Amino acid sequence: MPALHRAIPALRRLRLANTAFQQPAFVRLQAAACPAYQLRYQHAEAQYEAAPTSSASSADHAPQDQPDRPQSKIKPTAESYPNLKRDSRFKEVNADDVKFFKGLLGSGSAVIDGVNQDASEDLEAFNADWMRKYRGQTKVVLKPESTEQVSKIMKYCNDNLLAVNPQGGNTGLVGGSVPVFDEIVINLGRMNKIHSFDDVSGILVADAGVILQQADDHAAKSGFIFPLDLGAKGSCQIGGNVATNAGGLRLIRYGSMHGNILGLEAVLPDGTIMDDLSKLRKNNTGYDLKQLFIGGEGTIGIITKISILCPQRSPAVNVAYFGLESYEKVQQAFREAKKQLSEILSAFELMDKQSQQLYKRATGAKLPLENEHPFYCLIETSGSNTDHDSEKLNNFLEHVMGEEIVSDGVMAENETQVQNLWACREGISEAGQHFGGVYKYDLSIPLPQLYDLVNETRERFQNNGLMGDTDDFPVVDVIGYGHMGDSNLHLNVATRRYDKEVEKAIEPWVYEWVSKRNGSISAEHGLGLAKKEFIGYSRSETMIRLMKQIKQLYDPNGIMNPYKYI
Amino acid sequence: MPALHRAIPALRRLRLANTAFQQPAFVRLQAAACPAYQLRYQHAEAQYEAAPTSSASSADHAPQDQPDRPQSKIKPTAESYPNLKRDSRFKEVNADDVKFFKGLLGSGSAVIDGVNQDASEDLEAFNADWMRKYRGQTKVVLKPESTEQVSKIMKYCNDNLLAVNPQGGNTGLVGGSVPVFDEIVINLGRMNKIHSFDDVSGILVADAGVILQQADDHAAKSGFIFPLDLGAKGSCQIGGNVATNAGGLRLIRYGSMHGNILGLEAVLPDGTIMDDLSKLRKNNTGYDLKQLFIGGEGTIGIITKISILCPQRSPAVNVAYFGLESYEKVQQAFREAKKQLSEILSAFELMDKQSQQLYKRATGAKLPLENEHPFYCLIETSGSNTDHDSEKLNNFLEHVMGEEIVSDGVMAENETQVQNLWACREGISEAGQHFGGVYKYDLSIPLPQLYDLVNETRERFQNNGLMGDTDDFPVVDVIGYGHMGDSNLHLNVATRRYDKEVEKAIEPWVYEWVSKRNGSISAEHGLGLAKKEFIGYSRSETMIRLMKQIKQLYDPNGIMNPYKYI
Repeated sequence: MPALHRAIPALRRLRLANTAFQQPAFVRLQAAACPAYQLRYQHAEAQYEAAPTSSASSADHAPQDQPDRPQSKIKPTAESYPNLKRDSRFKEVNADDVKFFKGLLGSGSAVIDGVNQDASEDLEAFNADWMRKYRGQTKVVLKPESTEQVSKIMKYCNDNLLAVNPQGGNTGLVGGSVPVFDEIVINLGRMNKIHSFDDVSGILVADAGVILQQADDHAAKSGFIFPLDLGAKGSCQIGGNVATNAGGLRLIRYGSMHGNILGLEAVLPDGTIMDDLSKLRKNNTGYDLKQLFIGGEGTIGIITKISILCPQRSPAVNVAYFGLESYEKVQQAFREAKKQLSEILSAFELMDKQSQQLYKRATGAKLPLENEHPFYCLIETSGSNTDHDSEKLNNFLEHVMGEEIVSDGVMAENETQVQNLWACREGISEAGQHFGGVYKYDLSIPLPQLYDLVNETRERFQNNGLMGDTDDFPVVDVIGYGHMGDSNLHLNVATRRYDKEVEKAIEPWVYEWVSKRNGSISAEHGLGLAKKEFIGYSRSETMIRLMKQIKQLYDPNGIMNPYKYI
Repeated sequence: MPALHRAIPALRRLRLANTAFQQPAFVRLQAAACPAYQLRYQHAEAQYEAAPTSSASSADHAPQDQPDRPQSKIKPTAESYPNLKRDSRFKEVNADDVKFFKGLLGSGSAVIDGVNQDASEDLEAFNADWMRKYRGQTKVVLKPESTEQVSKIMKYCNDNLLAVNPQGGNTGLVGGSVPVFDEIVINLGRMNKIHSFDDVSGILVADAGVILQQADDHAAKSGFIFPLDLGAKGSCQIGGNVATNAGGLRLIRYGSMHGNILGLEAVLPDGTIMDDLSKLRKNNTGYDLKQLFIGGEGTIGIITKISILCPQRSPAVNVAYFGLESYEKVQQAFREAKKQLSEILSAFELMDKQSQQLYKRATGAKLPLENEHPFYCLIETSGSNTDHDSEKLNNFLEHVMGEEIVSDGVMAENETQVQNLWACREGISEAGQHFGGVYKYDLSIPLPQLYDLVNETRERFQNNGLMGDTDDFPVVDVIGYGHMGDSNLHLNVATRRYDKEVEKAIEPWVYEWVSKRNGSISAEHGLGLAKKEFIGYSRSETMIRLMKQIKQLYDPNGIMNPYKYI
C-alpha cells in the first residue's frame, strides 16, 4: 500500500506542525478581533484619524477604492461623480412635507428635520457610508416603526414625486445605502422586533431592522443558526441582507437567500403592502414574486419583514490549514473535501502564496507552515459530533497528504488556534492596504479558470513596469484569495499609492476578462452606485432590458433608490 | 441516571424488533417497485384496463380526483369544465401554419400534423395526461430541437395569436401539461442533451428535455446527486421540474429549486431568448428574473436549458421506523432528529395509525412494529461515513426511546429492509384508493397545527354520518401522512365510492381551514388547471393582482398555457 506508506510521514509532518502550532505564535489581527463594521459610522472619523488602516473591515469587506488619505471630510457623491445629475422630476422636500411626516411618525426622534433647522450633524450618519467614500445630501431622515407607516410614507412620496433611499444598517460596500442627492432616507432601524421563532421547524419571522447578530443570537437560544454570517453582523440589518442578497461565510453550507427566505413583507413604491410573509417551506401557488426583492437593493420596494428557515446549529467545529503545489491540486483537494467531508464541510477558502506573504509582511505574524507553498487552503467543518468530524477530517488529510495533493498541513486543536488559522485568511484584506492602498475586485469566475485571472493580472503588471520592489513602482503585489467553495475570487492589487496608471491597466480589462468567461463582476456585494455602470459586463442587453421592465412595472416614477442598480 | 436506565429496555425492544424485522415479512408494493409514472401515457389505457388500481403512482403522485371507473375514454377537459370557454381571440391553427412549422422543423417526426390529416392516435399521448383526467384537443404537436427553433415558433405564434402549451414529460398532477382546447403543444422531448458537468463544483448544464433519471445518472458518475427526486423520475423532464418547482423527497436535505438552480435559458412569448444560464453560485448583478420561471408553470416562457448545483452523493443510507403516542411526541422526535442527526437527516416522514392500518388492510402486509401506535415516523439519514451515521442514528434512537418520546422502533439492516420500511410510507397513497376512491389534498400547514386538520376532518365525517364500517357509509377512513420535514401534509379521505356529499363536506372547508392558518393549498403540485380557482385561499388579492401584472408584462397576448395558473 504505497499510498498509506506515503501517508505516514505526511501525517507525522502534520502532527509535528500541529504541535508547533500549539505555541501561541500568532496574534489575531486587531481588525479581526474587533471588526471595523461594529464601529458605527458615527465614530468613523475619530477612528480613522487614530488608526487609518483599521477603517477597513475584516474579511472581504473593505472599500474598493480608498479615498486619498488622510482626509477629514468625505467628498459629496455629487462631486465624486460629476456626470451624475439630480433628476429634476423629483420634488425638493419642503416644510409641508416635513409637517406631514411629523404628523405621521410623531415629532420626536422619528423624523430628523434638516428643512426647518440645521441638522447636518444628525444627518451625517445617514448621508455618509462607513467606507467614507459616498456622501449624500438628504435633509430628512424618517424612522418608521410599523409597516403601515412605511406604506403611508411611500404613498405620500410617490404621489409627490419625492425620491427615497431605503436604509438598513448602512454597511453596504457599493454606495447603495446612502443618498446620492437629496433623497429622503427611510431608515428601518426602529422596526426591530423578532415576531416568532418556531423551534421545531427553525423558522424565524422578524422585522427588517433586526440586527443580524441579534437574529442569530435568538436562533442560537434554541440551537439553531441564522443561515448567513458576515463581518458586519454586529451592525447590518437582516432586511438589508435580504435586499442585497448577502453571501458571506456560510453560503457553501447553507446556500443563498433565494433558497432560505420563505416569505417577505414589502412596501411597494405606491404604498401597497405586499404580504408574502409565508412560514412554509413549500407553497406552489403562483409566481414567487418575493425573489425579485431578494437582491433588488431597495429599487422596487422596501422589505419590512422576513421569514427565514434557520438550520440546526453545529456543536462541533474543526479548522485545518494546508499548503499545495498548484491550483490544479487546490481543485483536487476541493473535490476530495466535497467527497469526503461532504455534509460537514462549512468552508473551503483559497489563499495564494502572495496573499500569505503579504499578510506576513504586513502583520509580522508567523505563518502556520514553515515551508512556502504556491497555494494555501483553509478548511472548516461543522457537524453534530466532534469525534466523527475529527475522524473524517483526519481521514481526509491522510488521504490528500498521502496522495500528495496537499504538501503540508496543520489542524487547530483549540478555539485560539481556530482563530489563528482564520486570521491567516481574514487578515489578508487589511494586509493588502498596509503599503498604501489596494484595488479590490469581488468576482465570480467558473472554478477551473478562477486563478488564471490572478496570474494574468500579475503578468500584466510585470510586463508594464508598474510592479516592483522599490518605491519607484506603484504596485507591490497582486494577490488572489477567496471563497473557493462559492467560486468567488477576491483579486487585490496592493499598491504603494493610488495611481491612475494602475487603474487604467486593470479596468475595464478585468471586467472584460470576467465577462468573456461568463463570470460576475459582483459576486456578493451588489451593484449600488459603484457597479451600476459595469453591469453590461455580466448581463446581456436582453437581461438588462428585462430588468428595466421590472423596475418600470413596480416603480414607474423611479423614486426608489435612484441613480443606482440598473 | 434514570434516562439511561430507561434507555436499556427500550433499546432491547428496538433490537428485538430489529431482529424480527430481518425476516422477509414484507413485500414491497408492486407500484413502488415499478412506479406507474414509468408506464408512459401511451400505455395508460391498456394498463388501466388490466389493473385499475395501479394507475396511481407510488408516493404522493396519484391524481386528486379519480374519474369514475371503469372508463375506457378520457372525457375532454372542455366537457369536464363546462364553464371554461375557448378564448375566441386565439386563431385556429391552419394548413399555412403547419407549412411554416414544417419548414422550420423539417417534415419528419418533429411536427405531428392533425390539420392536414387525421392524426388523433399520434396526438393522444400529448393531449391526455397520465392520470386520465384531462384531455385537450390540439391538432398540432411541435418538437423543436434547439432554442432557436423554440424562439421562432414562439415569435410566429405570438404574431399570429396562436395559443401554445409547453410540455415536458407530461407527468404533472394538476392538468398543467396538456392543452385545454386546441393550444399547440410544444414538446421539449427532443431537446435532451447534457451540455456540461463540472466535477469540481458539481454544476450541471443541460437541456430542459433531459429526463430527471438521466440527469441524476450523469451526476452519479462523478459521485454527485441531482438535488431532486420524485416518483416520476423515469419520465419527467428537468425543464418541467423547474417550471413546476417540483418538491419531492429530498427537499428537507437539499432545499428547493429556488436555491439550487443557478441559471436558466428561456424563450419568452415574443420569441426573445432570455439567456440567464449562469454557472455561478454568486452573481449579485440585478433582479434574479429566472426565479419567476421557477414555478411559473410555462405561463410566461418556455424553459429551454438549466444550470443546477448538484450536491455530493452520500454513500451511506440508513432508515428507521418507529411508533409514537401523540403528535406532540412526533414534533419532539422531529426536533431531536434535527438536533442529533442534523447534517445527515435526509427524510422525516409522518404516518398516522389510520394510514398504516389502511396500508395493512389494502396490501395484507405485516407492519414493522407489532403493537399499534397512534403515530409512526420514518427517518432516513444520508452521509459520507456508514459507521458515523449508524452511531448517530443509534444514539438518537437510544435518546428518544430512553426519554419515551418514541415508544418502539426498528432500523433497517440491509437494502431489502430499507425498501420494506419505505413501502410502509410509499404504499399509503395507493392503499387509500383500494376501497373505491380517494379525495386527496396536498397541503402546507405550519408544523404545530399540521395534524389538527386530520383530526378535524375525521370528526367532521364522524359527526355527519358519512363515515362507517359498512357499505352504507361512503367514507372508509380519513388518513394523514406526509413530509414532516417540509410541513407538507397529505390529507386523504379514503372512500368506497365518489360521492358529491363527501366532496361537499370537505370542500371548500379544507381550503378555508388551510387559509386561516396561512398554509398553502398546493404545497408541491402547483396550480395548473385543477387549483387555478382556489389560489385565493393561499394568496391575497394583492398578491394575485401583482402576479397578474407579471403575466401581463411577459405575455400580453395571453398565449402561454392559457386557462390555467392564475
